[in-house]
Amino acid sequence: MSNIKAIVAGPRGKMGSEALKMIQNQSTLSLVACIDRMNDGMVVKEVEGLPDMDAVIYTDAAKCLSEVEADVLIDLTTPENGYTHAKLAIENGVRPVVGTTGFTNEELTELTELASEKRVGTVIAPNFAIGAVLMMQFSKWAAKHFPEVEIIEKHHDQKLDAPSGTAIKTAELIKEVRESHKQGHENETETLQGARGADVEGMKIHSMRLPGLVAHQEVVFGGLGETLTVKHDSIHRASFMSGVKLAAERVMDLDILVYGLEHLLD
Amino acid sequence: MSNIKAIVAGPRGKMGSEALKMIQNQSTLSLVACIDRMNDGMVVKEVEGLPDMDAVIYTDAAKCLSEVEADVLIDLTTPENGYTHAKLAIENGVRPVVGTTGFTNEELTELTELASEKRVGTVIAPNFAIGAVLMMQFSKWAAKHFPEVEIIEKHHDQKLDAPSGTAIKTAELIKEVRESHKQGHENETETLQGARGADVEGMKIHSMRLPGLVAHQEVVFGGLGETLTVKHDSIHRASFMSGVKLAAERVMDLDILVYGLEHLLD
Amino acid sequence: MSNIKAIVAGPRGKMGSEALKMIQNQSTLSLVACIDRMNDGMVVKEVEGLPDMDAVIYTDAAKCLSEVEADVLIDLTTPENGYTHAKLAIENGVRPVVGTTGFTNEELTELTELASEKRVGTVIAPNFAIGAVLMMQFSKWAAKHFPEVEIIEKHHDQKLDAPSGTAIKTAELIKEVRESHKQGHENETETLQGARGADVEGMKIHSMRLPGLVAHQEVVFGGLGETLTVKHDSIHRASFMSGVKLAAERVMDLDILVYGLEHLLD
Amino acid sequence: MSNIKAIVAGPRGKMGSEALKMIQNQSTLSLVACIDRMNDGMVVKEVEGLPDMDAVIYTDAAKCLSEVEADVLIDLTTPENGYTHAKLAIENGVRPVVGTTGFTNEELTELTELASEKRVGTVIAPNFAIGAVLMMQFSKWAAKHFPEVEIIEKHHDQKLDAPSGTAIKTAELIKEVRESHKQGHENETETLQGARGADVEGMKIHSMRLPGLVAHQEVVFGGLGETLTVKHDSIHRASFMSGVKLAAERVMDLDILVYGLEHLLD
Repeated sequence: MSNIKAIVAGPRGKMGSEALKMIQNQSTLSLVACIDRMNDGMVVKEVEGLPDMDAVIYTDAAKCLSEVEADVLIDLTTPENGYTHAKLAIENGVRPVVGTTGFTNEELTELTELASEKRVGTVIAPNFAIGAVLMMQFSKWAAKHFPEVEIIEKHHDQKLDAPSGTAIKTAELIKEVRESHKQGHENETETLQGARGADVEGMKIHSMRLPGLVAHQEVVFGGLGETLTVKHDSIHRASFMSGVKLAAERVMDLDILVYGLEHLLD
Repeated sequence: MSNIKAIVAGPRGKMGSEALKMIQNQSTLSLVACIDRMNDGMVVKEVEGLPDMDAVIYTDAAKCLSEVEADVLIDLTTPENGYTHAKLAIENGVRPVVGTTGFTNEELTELTELASEKRVGTVIAPNFAIGAVLMMQFSKWAAKHFPEVEIIEKHHDQKLDAPSGTAIKTAELIKEVRESHKQGHENETETLQGARGADVEGMKIHSMRLPGLVAHQEVVFGGLGETLTVKHDSIHRASFMSGVKLAAERVMDLDILVYGLEHLLD
Repeated sequence: MSNIKAIVAGPRGKMGSEALKMIQNQSTLSLVACIDRMNDGMVVKEVEGLPDMDAVIYTDAAKCLSEVEADVLIDLTTPENGYTHAKLAIENGVRPVVGTTGFTNEELTELTELASEKRVGTVIAPNFAIGAVLMMQFSKWAAKHFPEVEIIEKHHDQKLDAPSGTAIKTAELIKEVRESHKQGHENETETLQGARGADVEGMKIHSMRLPGLVAHQEVVFGGLGETLTVKHDSIHRASFMSGVKLAAERVMDLDILVYGLEHLLD
Repeated sequence: MSNIKAIVAGPRGKMGSEALKMIQNQSTLSLVACIDRMNDGMVVKEVEGLPDMDAVIYTDAAKCLSEVEADVLIDLTTPENGYTHAKLAIENGVRPVVGTTGFTNEELTELTELASEKRVGTVIAPNFAIGAVLMMQFSKWAAKHFPEVEIIEKHHDQKLDAPSGTAIKTAELIKEVRESHKQGHENETETLQGARGADVEGMKIHSMRLPGLVAHQEVVFGGLGETLTVKHDSIHRASFMSGVKLAAERVMDLDILVYGLEHLLD
């Protein structure tokens, strides 16, 4: 892999700042510019909290994407900005790598068509954690052979929603290959309500919340005399960055839009 | 430990037949008689499915306990029979070891007084699995220092009730040392009902049911930056027999009634 | 799937008797004959310990395979007999499903050519446990993205060899996609010899042996801020039978020899 | 618990700075001074990286301990300084709470005698993580009933030594109650050297090292048909601070030296 010139949008965000650190610590990507809402014209290392890097910051995304010679735009901002930036990037021949769950179907369709028309590789991914994406792909595969399955996800106790987005996404992937059916004994009863967890077409999902946990999930498949478990434990958002790097490398060989990191994980 | 002469009541039951096998495979206990509803006067090895042992079977418990010279009665029958047998045993100076969850408070009080009066050691235990009993004792201890706790129990999918009796018993033990309080974020919401499990004074219990599982429980305690987990996996009812053996040995040194194996596990 | 007529070789063995039970408890396969070293001419149900089934037993495999109208031969005998039976089966147009790790390369080559020539589907599998085979396939896939990996396998304490065959096989599959390299800190030291386990091209394998365990394996992949674990727990050899059934169904659509259940697990 | 006035020695260290944060975030302890090698006379908040607290820093420990009215000295420095500070503290009637594994037996004996003579409560602890200390206590208890045990400890791949200090300490505690004996099959063989791990009187210890791990340990006990597992997962050194706080509270009621947090965890 030769050197890939990257623009990062959102360098001060939680994910964006991890992306800068990741680029700093490897050799296939190099940072050529940043897009941010402030600090126009400054270089990265002049901004407090950012790493010792020399790329220039632009507040005008259109200017940045047309002026700077770049291969890839890594966008870790908001869905609204991500959409605008991706469009501008494609039009300027810069391949977008966008981390978001927030695009509408219309936006996705439009970007897909634009990428194909311009033949500019594009990756949009709701989840860049390779471990989490593999866990979901393994689960979908396993469910073809083990239709009895439960999910237990465990998170820190400041999390507001249960089940987690990853658990719901996992259940949706499993649904594509598993016929809906009730699990457990047909006459089973809950002597305490909620014991058997949430129900998705018969699959059960359990959500644990405790201090000392970060983000964990187990998908357990049961068959006669055996169980098969796929487990992901994430303790730091740095875990997303290997997926960002992979996407930035693979997007170089694409000329269409790919939605979801799983399509790059052969 | 010298040789302990044991009578087993219920030799054809699931637990009773395990008890015979256990006695056959060790050297501190020896079988001197059995109490059963049938096969009066036969010896054990003449009954189909029972091991090659020579003890005589009595259908008349009173006769057995008064005639046979025995140290210990191991009773693995029903609550009703267990109560009658225990009383007869104490009166005849034979120390009862009874596995049951079914005695009423009145029966327990009566047996406790009788044991003290006659100075005949007696052990009544709702659970003879040493591993399960230790799991519960560790959980009670841990909860003093980690009041944030959730239980996940996992059983085969033919189980009718959820949560399991062991999970409920564990929660009750923890309640003795943990102040009732809500866990998780104060504003947490279930987007799918039941995800957060059953609630016992703020503690959550989750019940998984899958083929390939037998009987498993994890008690997870969370604190700042750490979690502590106590886990028990039982795959065969033979696991109860080390507790039966222990009780039969320890009851020799008692002159009162002890309720619960935990009091013998120093 | 219409009805598949099966011959079972080795009906009194541990695996063979499980195969009979499996056939009895489902509806796509039916038992039409057995091949065994004794009991020629008897029917299955007349042999002590075998299930209540009416198929006839042959001691002469050649006679059985030429006389009985059958679709599939399920062979759970020894490598020597398995090879002879498979050859006879292919020549008689009966599709062999053979569970063995013991065939030589010459035997495999010969059977592969014979199956292609006669266009008779054949499945030879060293492992019929779908869960174990998926664990290995997931591990191979994960290792492409997570080259830092360790294996911990846990078995009952009567097992003679360490590491287990499955652990070694898993490591071999991972080797196909992972570049050999040392793991851990380059200056790490063992203050107690053996702590870091066995080494396979830098991957570590750890073998636990305890009573109460049956057959378990965890493959743990580590990346920046995350770990991904694939775990298989087997508590009964019945877990092999879903793989036997799958192979017997899929072999109907094959006209070549397939080695390894993984090629049937799409 | 009324307000406890604490001096912290080593405020810029990893542990010391966590101690300051812990004191800041609770209400039973208050910071009255710090002892450090530099910044004499400054207040904590003036030192870069330290929290917004007003206590004065002393470089002269003797001066600090004699001048400042304090209840407790929390020492998180080096063994050498810890010893000097503890002695000075006891002589000045300030109760020391020292985290160290490095005291010699002579130093411990001397401090024990001094504490008794002056009737000044003192706590010396090699490990302040309550979860880890409970894991070890549970393990010692379990080993009385389950003498077949293996330890698997898992750490990040920058760790130099294997096994971990905690694993060795756990094995030593278990040795106090477990008779030395070989585990596994008497004829077991390693086909790959090291597979069965390190050996401590027959107990096996396995050390896993991977990126994405922090500090984890499982102690697995096996019995007939069951296993019991005690597991500790630590992801941040903040986990030590609940133990520091507990020790600072309990030392107020002591008039002797106590070695080891376990004696405060009833």
